[in-house]
Amino acid sequence: MKLPLGYRYACLYAGIRKAQRDDLALIVSDTPATCAGVFTQNRVQAAPVRLSKAHLKASKGTVRALLINAGNANCATKTGDKVALTSAKTVAKLLKVPVEQVLPSSTGVIGVELDVTKITKALPDLIAKLNAEGFTAVSEAIMTTDTRPKTASAEIVVGKSSVHIAGMTKGSGMIMPMMATTLGYLMTDAAVPVSMLKEMLKEANEASYNSLSVDGDTSTNDTVLLLANGASGQKLTNKDRDAFTGALTHLMQDLAQQIARDGEGAKKLITIQVEGTKTDAEARQMARAIANSPLVKTAVAGSDPNWGRILSAAGNSGVVFDPSQTDVYLQGQRVAKNGLATKMSEEEMSKKLDASDVSIRVVVNGTGKGQARFWTCDFTEDYIKINASYRT
Amino acid sequence: MKLPLGYRYACLYAGIRKAQRDDLALIVSDTPATCAGVFTQNRVQAAPVRLSKAHLKASKGTVRALLINAGNANCATKTGDKVALTSAKTVAKLLKVPVEQVLPSSTGVIGVELDVTKITKALPDLIAKLNAEGFTAVSEAIMTTDTRPKTASAEIVVGKSSVHIAGMTKGSGMIMPMMATTLGYLMTDAAVPVSMLKEMLKEANEASYNSLSVDGDTSTNDTVLLLANGASGQKLTNKDRDAFTGALTHLMQDLAQQIARDGEGAKKLITIQVEGTKTDAEARQMARAIANSPLVKTAVAGSDPNWGRILSAAGNSGVVFDPSQTDVYLQGQRVAKNGLATKMSEEEMSKKLDASDVSIRVVVNGTGKGQARFWTCDFTEDYIKINASYRT
Repeated sequence: MKLPLGYRYACLYAGIRKAQRDDLALIVSDTPATCAGVFTQNRVQAAPVRLSKAHLKASKGTVRALLINAGNANCATKTGDKVALTSAKTVAKLLKVPVEQVLPSSTGVIGVELDVTKITKALPDLIAKLNAEGFTAVSEAIMTTDTRPKTASAEIVVGKSSVHIAGMTKGSGMIMPMMATTLGYLMTDAAVPVSMLKEMLKEANEASYNSLSVDGDTSTNDTVLLLANGASGQKLTNKDRDAFTGALTHLMQDLAQQIARDGEGAKKLITIQVEGTKTDAEARQMARAIANSPLVKTAVAGSDPNWGRILSAAGNSGVVFDPSQTDVYLQGQRVAKNGLATKMSEEEMSKKLDASDVSIRVVVNGTGKGQARFWTCDFTEDYIKINASYRT
Repeated sequence: MKLPLGYRYACLYAGIRKAQRDDLALIVSDTPATCAGVFTQNRVQAAPVRLSKAHLKASKGTVRALLINAGNANCATKTGDKVALTSAKTVAKLLKVPVEQVLPSSTGVIGVELDVTKITKALPDLIAKLNAEGFTAVSEAIMTTDTRPKTASAEIVVGKSSVHIAGMTKGSGMIMPMMATTLGYLMTDAAVPVSMLKEMLKEANEASYNSLSVDGDTSTNDTVLLLANGASGQKLTNKDRDAFTGALTHLMQDLAQQIARDGEGAKKLITIQVEGTKTDAEARQMARAIANSPLVKTAVAGSDPNWGRILSAAGNSGVVFDPSQTDVYLQGQRVAKNGLATKMSEEEMSKKLDASDVSIRVVVNGTGKGQARFWTCDFTEDYIKINASYRT
């Protein structure tokens, strides 16, 4: 993985989570980077989310450091705001940067006080450890119930040279679209004006994180940040916009798929494609309803080609369409034509559904041009096991 | 259970489902009964739902017979409409009643052709078996993944005499509000004008079946019917309306709770009470979001007093409220005050959550008078087991 220039990374175990695994991470841009962010749309917002939004506004989208802890969401606690601010202030002081250029994020359990001294005491060591190669270690430190780290990178040709983007993310449960799901950090060494950065992030986010669902729940801490520090010496202009947005979208879809594949208890990545609705928004609405249906997700877990549940979930989406003009495909094979069963060998199709990648495609026949792609995972007994005992 | 007068019941095994258990049932009113119905709001509607709606309209709410089969939803099949109509026609002919006074319903797997001859051949025997005591047997015949039958009854004093209501229902998975969930049949021997019957059913349904969720899925076949045949000789007037609606609501809530308690894989009935929102509709919206959150439902399964997930689910409901002014109660004990943890022994609370009845209460402090009650069940590994192998 070729990393973007001008960023350093560090992580360590600060004692925030019980398991002795790195739980505090820092990402620093050597020079002020422009920054765009998308945040949870949950009415309940964790203190670091509120502070990050305020800092981004105060700094007009200029950022130097991201401080991330796992093991505690710093949400719905008495001292939450103070913990977030004190952490950011300490980072700012040690790095000699303005406090509003430091954005904190947290992930973990809600409603448990976070002891800020664990963070402030660890910060000098953390800063001493900053290095350009720490990217992968940080991607591991921000994990909670994730079973593996999630990273992706891209290179985009700009003029005669090229710039790089690298991204990391975490997330496994409490994953749901309609917001910037989970934590995600994207770094590029291109120079990008804030307004352009915002637009590109919004567009890429819609087709990636906002098209992802593990369990229909939206966390209180979700944050995706895109930093651009210009260390490559290349400045993006309007003619680079499409290429960069395309690469960013691809990279963020890669990360989103990694999240779905690592969904709590998941054994299969499900890709849902909907076509032929009136608008793209309707297609996404229908795809989301299918992705959030426990009956569809358990059927996939059991390799049961139960397309009736898919059609029924589409029927519950709120989208007005004609089921008797609708086809359903599983693994590329048409299993329902115009709302009625086609001939298929249930046994053969069940075998095909044993694959780790399952595709569901719903086509509304007619003149509609709407389409959307959406990702989720199957729903297994292990999801229940993980979540019935999350805190024990 | 004191049954309403003037109804007869019968059931038998017609070979529709694999398991050799009664799968075809008939409910007949000895005289024409007025009838009100609520049906699924899924865009995909099974043939018997469409036919029942058409018949109710054609007969202006007059009904003689309900024909119900389990084991096949008669939905999304080539012959569905014909199967439903032929079944109804055969019942009408044998009973010598107009076809539009016969309402069919079906429950079971979607997308598999239903062999109508299994029904038409069985109908003479079924009709021969009709008797006033067959209520309980029919409530068992309409079961699918239910582990037990679900019935309830009530007596309402009208003038110097009394009338009776008896109800039966089925449902265990694919249960979700925003519609008349699952199958439910309510019989009364009061005489009630159709318009009044409709209003009372709508009101009672809103506070019972529409306040119920097992898994967030809405079936293609959901039907709740209320029949009034006047066999008691008592006619309801406007002054009886509140008493009757109250009894009907109570009875339907009883049935709804039985469904939640028997939710697929469920070990616990969860009652969710929301208070203090601006409107009752907002309270219901928030309660529904909590009821549909897999994270809340798995926490209850694991007796984990993880109130942060409850607050987070409320935050995702789309209702505008102030989390920092919101209290959360578990089993009657306040575990969060104004959005922050109260002191509690996690161990003691976890023990309390081992009960088979779990109460969640969310109170938005302030001036709002909105409130709602909602029922669901916990989410266990058995839900996955049942649904990953429903057809195998």
